[in-house]
This record gives sequence, C-alpha cells and structure tokens, in this order.
Amino acid sequence: MTVIRSKQNPIISPQDVSASNNEWEVIGVFNAGVTKYKDEVILMLRVAERPINDNPDIYLTPFYEASSNRMTIRTIAKTPECDFSDVRVIKTPEKNYLTSISHLRVARSSDGIRFKIDDKPTILPGTMYESYGIEDPRITRIEDTYYMTYSAISEYGICTGMMTTKDFVTFYREGNVFHPDNKDVVLFPRQVRGKYYALHRPSCSHYGKPEMWIAESSDLRQWGNHRHLANVREGYWDDGRIGASAIPFEIEEGWLEIYHGANKDNHYCLGALLLDKNEPWKVIARSETPFMQPEEVFEVEGFFGNVIFPCGVLVENDIVKIYYGASDTCVGYAETSLDHIRANLQVQSANRPTMR
Amino acid sequence: MTVIRSKQNPIISPQDVSASNNEWEVIGVFNAGVTKYKDEVILMLRVAERPINDNPDIYLTPFYEASSNRMTIRTIAKTPECDFSDVRVIKTPEKNYLTSISHLRVARSSDGIRFKIDDKPTILPGTMYESYGIEDPRITRIEDTYYMTYSAISEYGICTGMMTTKDFVTFYREGNVFHPDNKDVVLFPRQVRGKYYALHRPSCSHYGKPEMWIAESSDLRQWGNHRHLANVREGYWDDGRIGASAIPFEIEEGWLEIYHGANKDNHYCLGALLLDKNEPWKVIARSETPFMQPEEVFEVEGFFGNVIFPCGVLVENDIVKIYYGASDTCVGYAETSLDHIRANLQVQSANRPTMR
Repeated sequence: MTVIRSKQNPIISPQDVSASNNEWEVIGVFNAGVTKYKDEVILMLRVAERPINDNPDIYLTPFYEASSNRMTIRTIAKTPECDFSDVRVIKTPEKNYLTSISHLRVARSSDGIRFKIDDKPTILPGTMYESYGIEDPRITRIEDTYYMTYSAISEYGICTGMMTTKDFVTFYREGNVFHPDNKDVVLFPRQVRGKYYALHRPSCSHYGKPEMWIAESSDLRQWGNHRHLANVREGYWDDGRIGASAIPFEIEEGWLEIYHGANKDNHYCLGALLLDKNEPWKVIARSETPFMQPEEVFEVEGFFGNVIFPCGVLVENDIVKIYYGASDTCVGYAETSLDHIRANLQVQSANRPTMR
Repeated sequence: MTVIRSKQNPIISPQDVSASNNEWEVIGVFNAGVTKYKDEVILMLRVAERPINDNPDIYLTPFYEASSNRMTIRTIAKTPECDFSDVRVIKTPEKNYLTSISHLRVARSSDGIRFKIDDKPTILPGTMYESYGIEDPRITRIEDTYYMTYSAISEYGICTGMMTTKDFVTFYREGNVFHPDNKDVVLFPRQVRGKYYALHRPSCSHYGKPEMWIAESSDLRQWGNHRHLANVREGYWDDGRIGASAIPFEIEEGWLEIYHGANKDNHYCLGALLLDKNEPWKVIARSETPFMQPEEVFEVEGFFGNVIFPCGVLVENDIVKIYYGASDTCVGYAETSLDHIRANLQVQSANRPTMR
C-alpha cells in the first residue's frame, strides 16, 4: 500500500462552509486539527474568509480589533508601493496585512469522510494576539482533556496559543505557550520519563532557519530546554522549511512524527521523523524522499498551490488516516500504511545532517 | 542629582583585558552583568575578541565548533557579494557571520570602581547554540543562587541560555530557556503572587517589532503565558527597538525596570518602565524622554558608537549605580537618583501606546 486518496476528494471545500456573515466569502477551509471524540471523528477546520470585493482598484483586508472586540475592514489601494506578489500577504511600506482572516470551526463525522460542519464559527479571533486570525490547530488528547495549539497571528507576531476543551463545545484560552515567532507546535500525547514534550518551529530574523525544535514541560503551559531537532537539508525535497504536522504517535521503533517540508519553491510534501522512544530529542531515522506529495489537481492548484499540509492524522490498525489541507483551499483525505512510511526512512548516523 | 559619571570612565577598557590566546585581540569589553557576592561587586564582562589580521583583503571570522570543541577561524575574502556595512556582522550570500566572538569573564571589586579582572576567560562558548559567542549576561540572585541569562548566538539563531552559580567559580548550564530569536531576558528577583516573571525581547521575522514581552514560570526554567508588555513608540527616542537592561527592582510605587531604547538610527538611550507591583504585566508609567543618553566621547565613538547599554545596576540608598557598555567597546559607570528617574515617568493611560 502506498498512498490511497479518497474518491470523495476534496472531502471539504469552501462551498461547504457558510461565511460568518453575508458580506464575507469563504475562500479556504484547510489545515484541520484531527482527533476522535466519543465515536466521532472531529476536524477543527481552519476557515479563511475575506470581505466580498467587486472593486478591482482596492484590497479589503479583514482584521479583528481587540479593543472594540469586532471584525473590521481596512481598504488598501493597489498602489505600486505595495507588494501583492504573495497571494496570502499584502506588504505595504508601513505594515504587512493578510488577505484573509481565519477562524476555527468544528466538523463531525461518524464515517470519517462525510462531515457535518458547524453553521457558525466555533472559535473566532478574540485577543490582541489573534487580530490577523487563528490558524492551523493541532489537537492532543491527554486523559480527558484535549489540548489545542494554534497559530495566533497579529501585529505582535506569530505566537502559538493553546486552548483546552473536554467536549468541543466549551474552549478555554490558556494563553501564549510559545512567544513569537513560532508555529507548527505539536504536543506529545503522554509524558516521556516524567516530562511532556512539544515540537515547535521558531522563525528567526537573524541566523536561524525555519527548522524543527523540541521543548520540555512539566505542565504543558510553560516550556523550556529548547533544543534543535531537525534541519532543512540542502538539495533535498525539504531544503526550504520544515515543521511538525501531525501529533507524534508511538510505533514499535519509537515516536513517529509526520512533518511537512517545503523546498525553496514552496512545494510542500510529507515526510517522517522517527524519534527515540525515551529520548525524543534524538532523531533515529528520517524520510529520504517524501512519502506523499502534491499530485491531484486540487493539491497542485488553488489559492496557494502545491501544498499538502496535515495538522493531524488518525492511526488505526497500522493504517495512517491523513486529513490534509490542500493548496490552502480545501481538505483532502488519504490513507497509507505504516510500512509505506517506514520504507524510505533512513537511519541517521552520528554525523547526520540533522545535527550539523 | 541628574546623572553623574565616574571621573575614571571608562572604568574598564579592552587594554585591561588579556586576550584568550596570543593570536587574538580583545576589541571590546562591555555589557556586563552586575551583582554583589559577599562584599564584592561582581561584573560578568562580555569580552569580544577576534583573530589579529594584517591582511586588508580578507576578514577572519572566529567561530566555536561544537563538534570538535575548539575555536576555529574562517577566512572570508572581501568580495562585492559580501555586505560589511554593519561592523558587527559580515553578510555573505550563504550566511551571516559575526566579526568577533564574545565570551564571559568575571571582574571583582571592593570599591565598585577598580576591578580585578580574571586573567583567562571564565566562561567560553561551549555548546552548538553558542558557536558565534555568548553575550550580554544578566544576573538575578534568588536566595543563595545566582541565575545568569545570556544570549547564545549560533547558526541556529539567538537563544537565551541560562547558567546558575553559587560562587562565581562553578557555573552550570541550564539549557535554552527561550527559543530563538530572543534576547534581553531579565528575571525578577522574587516570585510575585506565586509566580516568577521574566522580561524578554523576541525578534520576529514577519509582523512583530523588537519589543518587550513578559512571561511567567514556576521554576525559572520553563516559561509560558507570554504577553506583550511595551512597544516601540513612533516619533519617540525609542521608536526603533527596546529591551530590558537591568534586573527589575522594587521601589515604593512598583517594579522599576531600566530598559534600553534605540531610535531608527541605532542611538541607544536609557529609560524606565514602572510595572505594577502585584501584576507586573501592567505598565503604570514610562519615561517620556531618556534619563540618560550617550554624551561622552567614549559613549558616542567606538566600535559601534552612540550606545549606552547596561546589563545590570546596583541600587543602594535610593542611588542607582549604573554599569553600562559604551559603544560596544568599554564599560562606563554612572550614578543617578531614583528621583531623577521618576522625574520624567509619565503615567500610562488606558489608551496608552504600550497597549495599542
């Protein structure tokens, strides 16, 4: 078994999601956190919206204003000083803006393919750290609590916030668990030798590259002992940037982390890291080539094409069920086997490039 | 009393410090952590060195190689592709390098002015996170332990590491307490309502600015609940970047934090933040104008001129004793009164710019 995509793909598209108000449109539903709650599969969808705009001379950028607790819109004229080369960002001489704003919405399914999506936003941006939106949730269940990390975007930078829930109805904001800039944070589902661990991905403004780090915690809220875990690899499929995608899960050989890697052309693929079971800051093996890459039209084309980006998987009977954002537009579903992921894992030597 | 500088200024200069080997030269001694140990004033000096180089066509950049545990030197030809406009950094098409490497060295004094400086480096770079040097230590005493935070610079970014000591002879590395990029970390000297606090200064690569944040901890090693504390102020003396300088200390009205602010021309001055005594994430008042700025020749001229930069102060009988790095070259000493600092503190309203 290699990778088998669902014939229903994409399983969730923007037209399946109602906008949060009549003047806005949903332009993307993607990068969903995944877990099981009771007998249902839960997707915590990232829903990207923007104000409907018929005027070709301007951009309307949506914005959550914390001081007044309301969504607002800024009008930006399409002048030559502004850089629109990235469809996701508008760069003005003063500031960068996002072209859409994301909130989170719960979808539920009993078969894992057909989802009932909440009519309204489940969680809207709600703090000064979330004024440009909340994105890319990851959900880790520990005992009866679900811990959801997410990117909180604002003019203060990209923080990683955390919410907790026990029922996917009531959510509690637990504050910023990682300071800016940091995203792609996934929490291990249990303590390892008395400590919790998280994978994270700082963005550095000076020397560092967008690479994966690991941190430890006693309480899941305060994090320390930050160590570099895995690097981008020159000349590989993941030479541009890497970050954790799924919550790490245990297999016989250690912790398996399904991560995303992009090359310098922003072509996002999936690989895996095998981490030591008792010392998860040690990389035992790593994918030489991606085990899954953008192939279908909806993965190659879209708002931001050539991207497959899971924020979670389910693992049942050695089958890995992958829910992935495709092209920052929709949600795809695919299954693969643990053996397929194992197949191109390359043992990392003491001189492995991950440690440089 | 405004600011009275020592007639012995600069109290420590590069020629007072022996290089760590015969082929290197000390180009700066500055940005020293400050504390008292037994009856002595301790300065933990940042000492910047570089290989002696007589060849005008090349740069020699020093580098600590963790894999071999030794200092090495890279030769960089002065080609047009490289950017030497910042005297501190060499930007090549592949990578950025520092023009010097810093280690830490203890200096002791019984009168607070004349210091006996260790002959040899007290702490050299020693991990993969310190390959470009260790810089800008801050020392907080809590009970009988001294906690020293410092910038650990490497190709992995700018981390904040922490060491502990009880005697300034033996130091223990406690790992990276803040992930990259983050510097200017100062720990409060006691718990506030059951939690430790730290001020920190992330550098963001996307939206955020170089501003001050506050985090909380139960054990001084793991940090969470990151909150934005104070912003750069457009049109002010601190409109470029700000960061904590001294360890916060208690006065009647709250916690007084002496911070450095630079304008967009990298002109570094000193101001103060008054933080709420019980809720230190609240800024009560802030300096409208600097209470001290570069004036003397050694503060205005040097390796990187127009910089005064303390990493600690001593407060005795309402006198603030400021040990400050000057122009990234030497150490100056000045005294001022609490009343002088109080004089231009402006109460911050609910609409204060610090919260935007």
